[in-house]
Amino acid sequence: MSTWTLHCSNCEYTAPGDRLASLCPNCSQPLVVRLTSAPPKRDGLKSSWSLWRYADAMPLAEGEKPVTLGEGMTPMLDVPALAKSVGVRRLWVKDEGVNPTGSFKARGMAAAVTRAKALGVKGLVVPTAGNAGAALAAYAAAAQVPVRIWAPATTPPPILNTVRAMGADLVLVDGHIGDAGKAAMQFAKDEGWFNIATVREPYRVEGMKTMGLEVAEQLGWRLPDVIVYPTGGGEGTIGIWKAIDEMIGWGWLPVGTRRPKMVIAQAEGCAPLVRAFAAGQDHATAWEGPVTYAAGLRVPGPLGDRLVLRTLRQSEGAAATANEEQMKAATFELASSSGIDAAPEGGCALHVTRALVKGGVIAPDAEVVVFNTGSGSSYRW
Amino acid sequence: MSTWTLHCSNCEYTAPGDRLASLCPNCSQPLVVRLTSAPPKRDGLKSSWSLWRYADAMPLAEGEKPVTLGEGMTPMLDVPALAKSVGVRRLWVKDEGVNPTGSFKARGMAAAVTRAKALGVKGLVVPTAGNAGAALAAYAAAAQVPVRIWAPATTPPPILNTVRAMGADLVLVDGHIGDAGKAAMQFAKDEGWFNIATVREPYRVEGMKTMGLEVAEQLGWRLPDVIVYPTGGGEGTIGIWKAIDEMIGWGWLPVGTRRPKMVIAQAEGCAPLVRAFAAGQDHATAWEGPVTYAAGLRVPGPLGDRLVLRTLRQSEGAAATANEEQMKAATFELASSSGIDAAPEGGCALHVTRALVKGGVIAPDAEVVVFNTGSGSSYRW
Repeated sequence: MSTWTLHCSNCEYTAPGDRLASLCPNCSQPLVVRLTSAPPKRDGLKSSWSLWRYADAMPLAEGEKPVTLGEGMTPMLDVPALAKSVGVRRLWVKDEGVNPTGSFKARGMAAAVTRAKALGVKGLVVPTAGNAGAALAAYAAAAQVPVRIWAPATTPPPILNTVRAMGADLVLVDGHIGDAGKAAMQFAKDEGWFNIATVREPYRVEGMKTMGLEVAEQLGWRLPDVIVYPTGGGEGTIGIWKAIDEMIGWGWLPVGTRRPKMVIAQAEGCAPLVRAFAAGQDHATAWEGPVTYAAGLRVPGPLGDRLVLRTLRQSEGAAATANEEQMKAATFELASSSGIDAAPEGGCALHVTRALVKGGVIAPDAEVVVFNTGSGSSYRW
Repeated sequence: MSTWTLHCSNCEYTAPGDRLASLCPNCSQPLVVRLTSAPPKRDGLKSSWSLWRYADAMPLAEGEKPVTLGEGMTPMLDVPALAKSVGVRRLWVKDEGVNPTGSFKARGMAAAVTRAKALGVKGLVVPTAGNAGAALAAYAAAAQVPVRIWAPATTPPPILNTVRAMGADLVLVDGHIGDAGKAAMQFAKDEGWFNIATVREPYRVEGMKTMGLEVAEQLGWRLPDVIVYPTGGGEGTIGIWKAIDEMIGWGWLPVGTRRPKMVIAQAEGCAPLVRAFAAGQDHATAWEGPVTYAAGLRVPGPLGDRLVLRTLRQSEGAAATANEEQMKAATFELASSSGIDAAPEGGCALHVTRALVKGGVIAPDAEVVVFNTGSGSSYRW
């Protein structure tokens, strides 16, 4: 239970925390949540078997019940065989594939649908590269809120079928998530429904930040040297970095804790953030003709570009790509050496980790957490 | 950490707990584990985010590390809309679909592969209706133990592809799990590999019993009036009933706690246990020509038949079926009214629950836990 205000990530705009909010009305950049209640206590976590054990660190008002399907509290598995193969001291895989509907997107939708429901939305829309749509379909069903989802017709059929299984309206779009976004926005405007797209509203990131809280807790309240995150829209990376800032502010980590290097992994066929980071830019330009098997990475023009690039600079991080063959090989290696049902996004992150060790960017004595953001089952049909 | 011995479920045979074991050498019935260490304490659970928080209640020797992928600690969701629709006071759905590889089978394989690895098996085999094979493939990868899996060629492709994704050897069989079982047994005999089939060894049930421990803990250390479990091989039902016995013996539940009615749900096209229970038999005869879309329920001759039927009698339980159309409708209802990604087995259990309320077997004021044993994603391609 907490209180909070909203702040533009780019300018001085602020707003109360008691309303639905979209991008900053002044500069069209994402808003972020700032807690105004007493700092949550690390020793006062709830007994819930979900990310709501961190309820005091989340935007959840007094007396509210979250919309939940048991998301979060995912395993973080120490895989010595992979550490050895990649060439680092220690390597954990944080397996987000065991979330409801099979991806990390569940966390953000749990947080955002909780707020949208509490604030009485008429209906919800989202454009999706896949997993966010499946997650929203499930949380909208849990909240019994009407929902319509726009996805590329090329989205893996198992993900589209999850949306249908939940009874959500699904509209297939020629093109990519950007094209889906335009259609969703128009419908939302016409019908007065709320657009819950990645970082277009401030609450999904609050769910995402619980990944950072969990990594710290699972390591016994310390941080790894490096976190490698396969990045499409960017909300995972943004959320984890926010969690690290907040935990340091709340005194949840030892004084003098060093922040990890944040590393993003993208597909060679859709790498707007890698390109922008390499060019030293503070924002990304849209990738032309995005192509990759890893649906979650097919986000050519992420709205969270500035926040992701800022995270990379602040953390002295890195950004690199895997091509389709490399991704496929690394996905099989990840699954067959650990038993984790890796998605291609996880394979992408593993490949990038190895490449950056070889390139001297990640040190051989580093402790690394690699995220597998989804279940491989979403890519098998 | 514990010590234990093995006991035949049917005759007086006993064996030490320090070895691999199969069926009773005297009567060919399943062996069960009996803890010989001090009763585990409810207030002394481990901090693990998996079923290994109950490690003192599990067959895990001093100093051993379990083979784990973070299985267990699954959500149990209170769904008032379903309670109302079905006509009971309260209804929770225990969602086993968020386990690694998407089903409850992960629990049993975690426990059994832990023991098999500790005892130095050369390789593992299993016949499967689907989910057990996917789970074994993952846990064998985690343990780095060779594995070969026999499955019907009609198994849903996503499940077969999970087996392949883990790098396991997969043999497709014309027919059903019984036919797969014969082939697996012959190979195990020829090669000296260990057959880890349902209740053919005693440790998978130990993983399954954690579902019973979790239900009690999630209700605040009490039991519901009714537990409805979709039943193929029977190890889930057997495990939950064992957990209830053990918790009562350990003093984990209030004195005078009433045991729940155990209800099994089977498919109309493969219902050997429902038929045997209705006929008052203590064992089942094999179902001829088993046909159902719910792969996990396509088990015509379950080896655990006597134990399941005994559980039903002891608990004053019930057994009923759903046909394919009913199962499909109830699966959609379960998903769209709760956000849980229901498998057809879960739909089967929901349909049976409603039918038994209508038939007066489950009382309108009952508190009911319905198991969704797997992820709907395994059935979409």
